[in-house]
This record gives sequence, C-alpha cells and structure tokens, in this order.
Amino acid sequence: MSLASATCDKMLLAGRAAIDDGTTIINLPKGIRMPILIRVMTLVFSLSLALPVLADEGMWTYDNFPTAKMQAKYGWAPDAAWLEHARLASIRLTSGCSASLVSSSGLVMTNHHCVRECVSDLADAKHDYIANGFYAATAADEKKCPAMEANQLVKITDVTQQIEAATAGKSDRAFHEAERAAKAQIESACGTASDVRCQVVTLYEGGIYDLYKYKRYQDVRIVFAPEAAAAFFGGDPDNFTFPRYDLDVSFVRIYDDGKPLRADNFLKFAAKGVKQGDIAFTSGNPGSTERADTLAQLEFQRDIAQPFVLNLFSELRGVLTEFSRRGPEEARTANTLLFGIENSLKAIKGRQLALVQGPLIADQARAELEFRKRVAADPKLAGTYGEAWDAIATAVAHQRKISVRNSLLERFPQWMSVLLGHAVTLNRYAAEVGKPDGQRLEEYSEANFPALRQEIVSPAPAHADLEKTVLTWWLTKVREYLGTSDPDVRTLLGTRSPQEIATMLVSGTKLGDASFRTRLLTGGASAIDAYHDPLIDFARLLDAPARAVRADSEDSVKAVITKNAALIAKARFALEGTGAYPDATFTLRLSYGAVAGYEENGRSIAPTTNFAGAYSHATGRDPFKLPDSWVKAQKWVDPKAQLDFVSTNDIIGGNSGSPVIGRGGEAIGLIFDGNIQSLGGNFGYDGSANRAVAVDVTGIAEALKKIYHADRLVSELTH
Amino acid sequence: MSLASATCDKMLLAGRAAIDDGTTIINLPKGIRMPILIRVMTLVFSLSLALPVLADEGMWTYDNFPTAKMQAKYGWAPDAAWLEHARLASIRLTSGCSASLVSSSGLVMTNHHCVRECVSDLADAKHDYIANGFYAATAADEKKCPAMEANQLVKITDVTQQIEAATAGKSDRAFHEAERAAKAQIESACGTASDVRCQVVTLYEGGIYDLYKYKRYQDVRIVFAPEAAAAFFGGDPDNFTFPRYDLDVSFVRIYDDGKPLRADNFLKFAAKGVKQGDIAFTSGNPGSTERADTLAQLEFQRDIAQPFVLNLFSELRGVLTEFSRRGPEEARTANTLLFGIENSLKAIKGRQLALVQGPLIADQARAELEFRKRVAADPKLAGTYGEAWDAIATAVAHQRKISVRNSLLERFPQWMSVLLGHAVTLNRYAAEVGKPDGQRLEEYSEANFPALRQEIVSPAPAHADLEKTVLTWWLTKVREYLGTSDPDVRTLLGTRSPQEIATMLVSGTKLGDASFRTRLLTGGASAIDAYHDPLIDFARLLDAPARAVRADSEDSVKAVITKNAALIAKARFALEGTGAYPDATFTLRLSYGAVAGYEENGRSIAPTTNFAGAYSHATGRDPFKLPDSWVKAQKWVDPKAQLDFVSTNDIIGGNSGSPVIGRGGEAIGLIFDGNIQSLGGNFGYDGSANRAVAVDVTGIAEALKKIYHADRLVSELTH
Repeated sequence: MSLASATCDKMLLAGRAAIDDGTTIINLPKGIRMPILIRVMTLVFSLSLALPVLADEGMWTYDNFPTAKMQAKYGWAPDAAWLEHARLASIRLTSGCSASLVSSSGLVMTNHHCVRECVSDLADAKHDYIANGFYAATAADEKKCPAMEANQLVKITDVTQQIEAATAGKSDRAFHEAERAAKAQIESACGTASDVRCQVVTLYEGGIYDLYKYKRYQDVRIVFAPEAAAAFFGGDPDNFTFPRYDLDVSFVRIYDDGKPLRADNFLKFAAKGVKQGDIAFTSGNPGSTERADTLAQLEFQRDIAQPFVLNLFSELRGVLTEFSRRGPEEARTANTLLFGIENSLKAIKGRQLALVQGPLIADQARAELEFRKRVAADPKLAGTYGEAWDAIATAVAHQRKISVRNSLLERFPQWMSVLLGHAVTLNRYAAEVGKPDGQRLEEYSEANFPALRQEIVSPAPAHADLEKTVLTWWLTKVREYLGTSDPDVRTLLGTRSPQEIATMLVSGTKLGDASFRTRLLTGGASAIDAYHDPLIDFARLLDAPARAVRADSEDSVKAVITKNAALIAKARFALEGTGAYPDATFTLRLSYGAVAGYEENGRSIAPTTNFAGAYSHATGRDPFKLPDSWVKAQKWVDPKAQLDFVSTNDIIGGNSGSPVIGRGGEAIGLIFDGNIQSLGGNFGYDGSANRAVAVDVTGIAEALKKIYHADRLVSELTH
Repeated sequence: MSLASATCDKMLLAGRAAIDDGTTIINLPKGIRMPILIRVMTLVFSLSLALPVLADEGMWTYDNFPTAKMQAKYGWAPDAAWLEHARLASIRLTSGCSASLVSSSGLVMTNHHCVRECVSDLADAKHDYIANGFYAATAADEKKCPAMEANQLVKITDVTQQIEAATAGKSDRAFHEAERAAKAQIESACGTASDVRCQVVTLYEGGIYDLYKYKRYQDVRIVFAPEAAAAFFGGDPDNFTFPRYDLDVSFVRIYDDGKPLRADNFLKFAAKGVKQGDIAFTSGNPGSTERADTLAQLEFQRDIAQPFVLNLFSELRGVLTEFSRRGPEEARTANTLLFGIENSLKAIKGRQLALVQGPLIADQARAELEFRKRVAADPKLAGTYGEAWDAIATAVAHQRKISVRNSLLERFPQWMSVLLGHAVTLNRYAAEVGKPDGQRLEEYSEANFPALRQEIVSPAPAHADLEKTVLTWWLTKVREYLGTSDPDVRTLLGTRSPQEIATMLVSGTKLGDASFRTRLLTGGASAIDAYHDPLIDFARLLDAPARAVRADSEDSVKAVITKNAALIAKARFALEGTGAYPDATFTLRLSYGAVAGYEENGRSIAPTTNFAGAYSHATGRDPFKLPDSWVKAQKWVDPKAQLDFVSTNDIIGGNSGSPVIGRGGEAIGLIFDGNIQSLGGNFGYDGSANRAVAVDVTGIAEALKKIYHADRLVSELTH
C-alpha cells in the first residue's frame, strides 16, 4: 500500500493533533485540504533568531529567492526567466500535494500516493487499480478524477499596505476581524470566476501580506499509476529511509474546455540520471513549519509531548499488530489506523531525534539569548516585544501540567475511535448549534459545518471488534496516566473495567448506522438530546472534563502562545526584513541544494540507487514483494538505470510530488519522501544528514518503457 | 497478582539488561540473588560531585551514620545503642529482599512479594496460597520455605589496609586478581561454619573495604501471607503511585536448631499510626545505584537508552495485551512476561521523567565542571584522575552508535524468548567450554556454570504461540531499527518474513523439551555441535553479529567506563572521604527522613491512607477487587485505621521489606514501593516529591485482627 493517501495523511496530521503541542492550526482556504504526506520534513537550525541561514536551508518565496546566497555557494543562480519558467510549471493539487507540468499537452507528474484516492474511487469489483496500477493506453482511456483540482500560481502581488491600512490601530479581536474583512475584499476583487482562485497569504507572521492568484483546473484525468507494491516498495520498514527503491510516481492530465491543456511552461525530462554534486531545486508547497518555536516550546516537545505520543502510539501499534494477526478481516479493518500510527511514529521519532541528538536545543538557547539582547537594546522594540518569550515560557509551564490530560480526554478519543468520534460530535453539535457563531467551539462554526456534516453522514463503517479494542485500550491509558484516584477517571470508569465499558458502548449504540446519524443531525439539537444510548451518554459524561481541560489549554496556553509568537515574529521581521524566509504556508516555495550522499552510523550512503538494487532488495514477501510486471521485465530492464536519489533540499509535508529541477530548468526527479534525519525539519534544518528523497526521472522513463510498455506516455515525456 | 516476585524481579532487572546502558554488573556473593523489586527507587541530585547532601538523601552505612547532619535538621539523632538495636533487628533475605525481626521469638516481617515464591512452592492442587493467602493458626502449622535464607549483620570490620597491602603497585588485571585473592582470604579467615556468611564489601569504589559478618539462618518458615489481591491491590495501574491501599506484608519465622530463634533485638509494633512530620528511618539493603554517572552517561540514558526501551517495551506491551485477549490460556502464558514489561515500563518512565523534568542534568553539568576544577587544581590528582571524564565521554559517544544494535542482537532475544535463550546458551556453551576459564564470556565461566545449568535443565515450559508472537515481533524490530539494507539484517532475515521465520524456529525445534536440553548439555560440545534444527541453527547465525557488537561494547565502552568511573570515585574519595555515602551495594544501609505528603500536578497528596479509602477504591473488578475476607469484614474494620503512608526516605530496589523505624526504635511501617517520582533514585535524590511507600504497622495489626482473625500473631506482635 502507498504511504500517504489523503486518509493516511489525515491520520498523520491527526497524529500530531493527538499531541497537545500548542501548535497554531493553519487555516487553509476553503476547498484546500491540509497538505498531504508528512513523509517529507527537515531538520535542525532555527533561522528565526537572527542567525545566518546555513547550508541549503530555506523554503523561499519565488519573489524573494536568495540569488546572491546561492551564487556564493554554487557559483551559479537562476535568473528571472528561469524562475518564471519553474513557477509556471509548478502545480498545487488541492488534495494537499505538489506537482508539475511535464509536457506541452497538460501532462502533470506527481506521486502515486497523491492520486491514491482518485485511483481508488475509479476502481470497481473488476478493476483494482491500487493493486494492479492504471494506464490509459489511448487518450480516450484517461479517466476524470472525481475530486481532484489543480492550481497554477500565475501572479504574486504585495498587498501589505492595504491590509495594514485596514488594521491600523486595532488589536486582538478587532484586529483579526479587520484583517479577515480586508483579505476577503482583496480576494473578491482579484477574481471570482470559477477558473480563478485568489488567496491572501500571511507571510512573516504579518510582516508581509501577498495576494496569490491561481488559475484553477477542475478537470484532471488519470493517465498512469503503477502498482502500489512498486510505488511503496519496502512499506513501513523502508519508510523515511534511504537507500530506497520506490517508483512513487503517477501522471494525470489537466483538461481545459474538454481538451488537454496547452502548456507553454513545462519541465522536460532530463536524459541523464543525476550524480553527486548536481544542482537541484524543488518547487512545491511545504505545508507548515514551526521553526520559530522558542526554547521553552522545544523543550516541551522534547520532554513531554513527543515522548508521550511515542510511548502511546508504540503501545497502540502493538495492540493493533496483534489484533491484525487474528485473521484477514481484523487485518483489513485495523489497516488504516495501524498505517497512520506507524507513519506518525516514524515521523515523530525523527523529530525527537532532532531534539535530543542534534544541536538544535543548545543552539536555540544561545540564539534566543542573543536575539533577546538585540530586542532589549532597542527601547521601542523592547517595549513592544521584550516580554514575549517569558509569556510563552509561563504558558508552556502550564501546558506541561495539563497536556497529557488534554490529549487523553479531548484529542485522542475522537481521533482513535470512529464511534466515539460520532457521539462526541453529535452531542457537541446539539450544544453548540444554538450559540452565536463566534462563541462556538471552532469546529462547530457555520463555516466548518459542511465538513462536520460530511463526517457525520459518511457511510465509512465502524468495525465493532476494532472499536472495542481501541476503546478498551484508551480507557486503560486514561486510568494509567491520570491515576486511579483522579476525579475524572472515577467519573468515566466508575466501578467497571475498561473492557466492560468498551463492550457496553459499542454493543449498545445505533451510531454505527450512517442513516441513523443523518436523521439525528437533521433533527437538530432536540432530536439529538432526546436520544440516549450507552455511547452517546458516555460522550456526555466525557464532555465536561474534556471541555474543561480544552478551555484551560486554549485560554492559558494557545492564546498566549499565538499572541506572543506573532510578537516575536514581528520583532524578527523588524530586525531582519525579508533576508530570511517565512515559515511554510502551503504556498509555492523554491528550495535549492544539490544531489548528495551522507553519513549514517559511520556508514557512507551513496546518493543514488538503481534497478539492480531494487531487484536484490526484493524478497518476494510483503512489503518487499515487487509486482509481477517487474519480475517479468527483469531481463529487459537496465540494472544500472538509476531509480531513486537524495538531495539536500529543505522540504516538508506538502512537498510530496514536487519536481526536482536541474540547472537547465529540466525535471531531474520527483520528491516523495525525506530521510529520518530530515524529520526535525519542522523545527529546523541540518544540512549534514537531512535529505529529500526523490525518484530519478530517468528511472521513471526506464520503468515506463521496459516494465509498463507505456509507449504513448514515454513518447510524450521524452520527445 | 503481586508485583515483584523473584521471577518478576528478574524480569525487571532484565528490563535494564535489555538496555545497553554501560552499567557495571554488581557481582554478588554466591547464593545471594539480585535484589528483588525495583518498585523502590529514588531521585535527583548526584552527591558524587562534591555537593552538599540535600534534604534526606543518603543510604548510609551503619558505621558512618551522619549524626550531626540529622541532628541539625531534626534536632535529634540516634545514639550508638539505637543504631546497634536497629542493625541487629534488620534481616537480609537472600532472595533479594530486606526484612526485620518483630518479636523475641524470631518472627520476621517482610513484603508479600518477598515470600511469593515460597508460598507458591508450598501450594498444591488443593491449596492456592497465592489466591487465598496462608496463615499458621498454630506453631505446628508453620511451614518451611524451601529456598529461603535469612542473614543478620553482626559485625563490620574495616579491612582496607589488608586489601591495599595485597594490591599495592598493581593495576588492571593483576590488581583485580590480587584484590580477589585478598578478599577470599579474609572471608575464609572470618568464618567458614555453615551458620556464618562473610563478605568483603567494596565501598566508595575501593576507598574503603569492609568485612561484613552475618549470622545465617536456613530454616525459615512461613507464618502468614494475605491474598495476593490484598497485597497487590490496584495492580499495575496503582504500581509506583500514591495514594495506595496495599497490605503488602507477610510474616516468616527464623528457626534455630529446630526452635524459634530467641531474639534480643527486635522492633516492637508501634501502637499509634504515623502522622505528618514523624521521624522515620528505613533499615534495609538497597541493591544498586548509579549516582556517580557522568553528564555524558546521563545524557546517553536520557537521549538513547531509556527512550529506546520505553518505545520498544510499550509496543511489546501492546502486543502481549492483545495476545492475552485471545483466551485464558494465552493470558496465562503471557502473564509473566507482560507483568515484567509493565513493571519495567513504569520504572524506566520514572527514571526518564527524572532526567527530562528534574534539575538533574543541569545540576550535574555544573557540579561536574566544579569538581573537575578542584581535581585540576591539585597536580597530583590532576595527573592521576584528570582525564577520566573525557575518556568516559568518548566511550559514550561510541555507545550512542552501537547500543541499539547491541540491545537488539545480543541482549534482547535471550531475555524475551525462552526458546531462543536456550538455543543461544547451548550453542555458546559448546563454543566456550573448551576455552580457558578466564577467556570465556562471563556467564560461561566455571563459577557461573551452576546457574547456567539450572537455566537449561529447568522444566519451566516454553509456550509455542507466545514464542512465535514475540519472535515475530522481535524480528520486525531488528529490521526496523537496523534497516532493511543492513548486512546483519540481511543475514538474519534472508528473503523470509519475520512471521515465517518465527514459525519455522518454534515449530522445528526440540529445545522446548527440558530432558532433551539436559541430554545435549550432558553430552557437551560435541553433542551440541552435532545437533541441528532451525532454532539452534538460527542461534548460530545470530552468534557472529551478536558477539561482534558485544565485544565492541565490552572493549570500547564498558571497560573504559568501569576503569574511569573508578578513577573518578577515587578522586572524590580523596577529596571528600566518608563525608558522603557510597553507592548502594545490597548491604545494610540506614536512611533517615520523615512522614510527609507531597504535591503532584498541583494537587496535594496526604501522607496517609486508611481502610475507608481501600473500600471506596475497590470496584469489584480486577485489579481493584478486594478479597472476600475484606468484603466480609468491612463492618468490623475501623474505617479510620491507617493503611499505607509515604515518607521522604531514600530507598531503591532491594529495600523491599525494610522496616520503617520510629524515633523510639519501634516498627512504624513496612516499605513496599516508591512513588513514580522516586524512580530517578538510580541517578539521584529529589526530596520535594521522592517518596517511599509503606504499610502502616497499625494497619497491619488492624487487618490481622479484624479481617484475618490471626489472634496468635496479633498477640505476639502487640503484647
């Protein structure tokens, strides 16, 4: 199976959501889902604190590319024409991925795991496109992906002055309302046609507001996807590692007015494989980073949040692994949850390594001290921003005390249990819907109602045995972490055992039935309140302690951190301007770097792999079982043709599907992962071992030719 | 079930053994098993570095009690007569526990979990003394524990000069041989009669050698043990926590020449329950501490060793929990391993909290710097000891790279799998037995052969399904942590899946049969080498990479650390002498402190619990199900009678069963656990929240009277 389908990615993001980490949630424009895939992250040095940008660090906006810096290091840097070409060839998929145009006929290259949902939606009883792959041998065979939209960034306009004029003199709530109104006005003025998408992007925490104008395409058709076993060869064991042998590629085509899009700017496939030292750019949409976290926040991640979720998820992984061994039905039903858990575990393990092994914490301590001195030295800055770090530290000290309770009572149950999630949502909807919009819990606002309704009415089934298992386990963890003498624990468990309670909740509810849930939702608060069963009554019991700790967390932790983090970012912008890059915002960024191997545990890792390596890595056992097409084609495939490679580019979740672009503006690769050392990229970047993992375009061409005989596609890509 | 039977304790110690933590193994005199129970540990400030001893820190030898220090804090301290009385009333059980004389007729009080093996050995099909408890209503009903020996420390003699004379001018191997010979000579001269046990104890890493002379008693009979459900009420959820409601007590009697021992020194039961502020001593045998660890070692524990085992054990816990849910047979067979895992997890979690939350690391950094300055200031000390810290740091840097491999290939498999343990042991025995004694792997030396033989011939069964499950899981972890491209992983897994291999190993071996193993062992190297099956052949495959990483660890890490830790300890002894206490050595120590509540997550924890609390804590569901005897007696029991309490005493594993002694020399309690905050006690002590957990003797008396109607025993204890 592929690593990061939209579902899996939701899992992974939820994996973070299961930690009470005080992260500000990024509000994406409607219709844009959260960035797919956190397979892609990076590591160690926070540039947020007035330190020079190191090595190949940086997710640069196209209108602020550090030409001089790159020139100094590589003796060459792209000019304006190069940049425009790369920008216009770059595509954002609203499913949360990046992509690129690779032919003049609107052909788009992205990852297999970025089209997994499309391929799955198009499958039927006779056609398992996930297992067997998909190839449109003729133009007529290209099939429309039901839910895919492609965006092309056509223009960036600075609108900082307009926003600042609207918000001048305002603060807190009034500020945010004025900012929101000004943004909406600018976006409307930019264009409301169905083929235009306009978004005001807040960069440098409000130091700059840019209007991003996209051309939107809603007719996107699938052209090619390999078998999942080839795309995600090596499965969880190889996830976030290198050497790798994955063909994590797919092709879709943008149609405009029912015809293939005529594209002036596209990336030609390179004819030769990459080699050590080659200049490499990635152009894509990194989702979010927290590189401006203060020392107190990093220590909280290192000491509390990440270890908690690592231990918790490790145990749940064990439970689900053993549950899956009971039989194929158990394996099938637990698969999605287990997959999300494993992916999260590796990702968070990488982040934790960055904090405990790398120089990040010590460097941050030193850099923070220095930067605070610079702020203190300027009376105006000191008065406005000087207290921000201590305010965050105080909030984090409180967070250390409440985060485990918040995770266990408020975040974790809904995330982990489909049924309890429905019960909590319905019960809270009944309580919230009567309140003024602004006073509701965020996810129950009018704007979020479509998503909430979608979740409730979705026929995605709950599996009783799995639900009993995870709920039993969750209740034992609540008891273990909060303690048997805790009043909330006594309220929830009473005198029954976790297993008794879980069985009662799952067996006694009708909420597993989507049509019943829909009726309750349609009936509104009165219908919901009138309904009783053990599960929804338990959700009511859970509500008070869960709301209490959530309110404490939102008021005393998140609000304080959000406000003061913005102050720190503004202080930084005041002292540094655009000499640094802004934190990631799931908008288009360019990173520069080079193809480069690295050292790991004293071993030297070569920068490229080839098909011979793939065949020798195969064992015939899942997840190291190559598909039959590969086995049959072995005699034809050039064993020395390159398959995957690593480069120093600074990327993170959302960069999935980004093209790797060579000096000549050609496609040389396709990003699909980062190594384990890159996973600290959320907090900073360490060029020594942080690597982006890509498929070599010459490997893609070799496979299309020799394994898939996709002649029409090969011809389009290489002629 | 009870927390720390000898078996479980072995698990827990092995839990540490599964970590490659560079710890020097304490060599206990023959016939003394490793200290039972690591339920009892403590926390935060390393006194090893020339800092004042804080609060109630210290595991003091009886001949160096810090009278002035205690006098200064408490306005009172014990005199010589008090100390002699307490020492002679203290008993060490060779099963790894502490205990005390509590009547003039040789009655001895210890924990339930310290007699669990005895009670289990005496049980038969009709008498389940674990579930139902044991009480000898008459003297004739007292039954001899098959394997229990009690030791009473009668004399301490300083023999430092004799040892130093023998080792003068020698170093390394010659030094150790001379030291061992001198010790053996002194011990022989001290007494070889069957009722005398003499041991030269190395204190302050060789700063002092003391001869401890014990009177040994080998006729020890069980008098009383409650139901396991009362002794370990609250099970794993309440383990290492407070408030608690456990009656973790048992009574045995020492017989001398077939009659109850006449004891001049014993601890009378206090008539009144303890209260906040009461002075409290504990007299017992703390097993081992590592309070002299350097900063580099602590950081290794925090960053690598402990997080690794926490994640690994969390996952295995999940696997075993779910395995146990398949049915009663699975639950029964997985029980011992699961129990050990859970106990280890809590213990290591506590240690980890101490390192990431407490001030230990920062304090150690500062203290180490200061102490090194003091050493550097003295040219003689500087020349001899000045390089020791850097030498350890270099060894630890290497350990960071190899410890996961060492744990996974060398330590973990034998610990976790009974069958693979047998295969590895037999195969290595065949390889080692022909070598000169001094060149063998330590556990295959002549001296260790009886223990090794015992393990091989033991009929303790291996459970095929459980073995398949843990071996499958272990192989996936080897693959995950070392990586699919690792040569050792390729050697071990070949092209088969972990599950295929595990099934083949377990199904294809005869090594589950104890008589077959005995035949192989008796047949010696030739018989073993001639035998082939998939399991022992796999053990042969594993041997080379496992030995390689072990040798690397022993030569480049442990040997360096051991040597340089001794240098640091000698520098410290040179500058401080006996003003501090030595690390724990499973010999008699006295700690002083007071009954005291504490703060936890902003909540105030009262220092005592009572029977009313126990009844209200009971849910009727395991592990919160009180035995029938308690339920029936509820109307007679005084709800306000005290049951358990906490005190500030500095204790650790091996202190289980230690009496808590009041100012008047009377027994006021019985140590059975430490709270989670105490678990960092391995590294240091933090008086703010570190608490020892004890049963109040008045609670013991109340239960014996009202619940167990043990009139004979009550009369002996209280009159």
